[in-house]
Amino acid sequence: MEKSALIVIDMQNGFLDPASPLFIAGAPATVPACAEAIAHCRKNGIPVFFITREYLPDGSNVEHTRYAAWLNGGKPLSQGCAENISTAMPEAFGEDESDFHLLKPRYSAFFDTSLDLILRRKGIRHVILAGTTTPNCIRTTCYDAICLDYNVTVLSDCTSSATEEIQQSNLRDMANVGARICSVTELKSE
Amino acid sequence: MEKSALIVIDMQNGFLDPASPLFIAGAPATVPACAEAIAHCRKNGIPVFFITREYLPDGSNVEHTRYAAWLNGGKPLSQGCAENISTAMPEAFGEDESDFHLLKPRYSAFFDTSLDLILRRKGIRHVILAGTTTPNCIRTTCYDAICLDYNVTVLSDCTSSATEEIQQSNLRDMANVGARICSVTELKSE
Repeated sequence: MEKSALIVIDMQNGFLDPASPLFIAGAPATVPACAEAIAHCRKNGIPVFFITREYLPDGSNVEHTRYAAWLNGGKPLSQGCAENISTAMPEAFGEDESDFHLLKPRYSAFFDTSLDLILRRKGIRHVILAGTTTPNCIRTTCYDAICLDYNVTVLSDCTSSATEEIQQSNLRDMANVGARICSVTELKSE
Repeated sequence: MEKSALIVIDMQNGFLDPASPLFIAGAPATVPACAEAIAHCRKNGIPVFFITREYLPDGSNVEHTRYAAWLNGGKPLSQGCAENISTAMPEAFGEDESDFHLLKPRYSAFFDTSLDLILRRKGIRHVILAGTTTPNCIRTTCYDAICLDYNVTVLSDCTSSATEEIQQSNLRDMANVGARICSVTELKSE
């Protein structure tokens, strides 16, 4: 069977708390499904990669198009910001010594990170995507993965958007370029 | 004023002809608007970059998710394929010695190309996007451009999708991350 990895993207307080200017309305509700996917993969020897943000205090690695909102909104996801909009992940995810943790400076989990090098070294050819936000970080990661010749599964109930319409139109577009869309329940039944 | 470049993506027979398995239903209708944008930019000293495909005859640089359709559909956009699904661009675009021509092997105009290096060298900080298809090549180029700190304008009537709903939902998502969406008429009036 093809070797897989679970890629969990940006599930951090700075995207999950309504006080953050980067809050994603659909994200908090996906925490239990993400935790389920994480536990399933750990149990089955599928490596779990947490790809997250940690902005520099001066904002020099914030996307230029969101810099103003970030600066005026308490500098979420940076050292010294309030705990509720910090880089921390949900406790429900737990920790495991087999987990991988990588920081990314932009939307895609592949952009300026070592993710591709690590996946290649481990012989992984299939990535399973979870996290937020579907139109930005999930989708750019999906396209980069396809372009790097990975097969891609997007977990529909482990990804989230500002609105249901954005969620559905983006899942459709990713399916149209060859990504498989399924739920965590379907993943666990394989 | 900020230095700009026009990036014209994948406007080739292999995407414009209904006989091609890679045909984009909305693309042929955008040829006149694209030609208008190209003529406007050439006239105003805005460099025009044509970023196009040329698949290898063995398909080794075709996206893996579309390889079967490509192979069974006459190998569009490769040497030796039928003229109507070839790499040729519309005659309406004309030619100019100031034009740049780059090949790309994947969706984004930045993926494995020298586009970023050339734009940096020329001091360009703003890219204007035209071509097809909006959810794939235009959108991945838009996100890569934002991540590389370019400002982005997407020409709504010079880009195209398989359906109007796909076109509109993708323009919305790109506007949500800071891209400016405007028509070629608006561009010319600036």
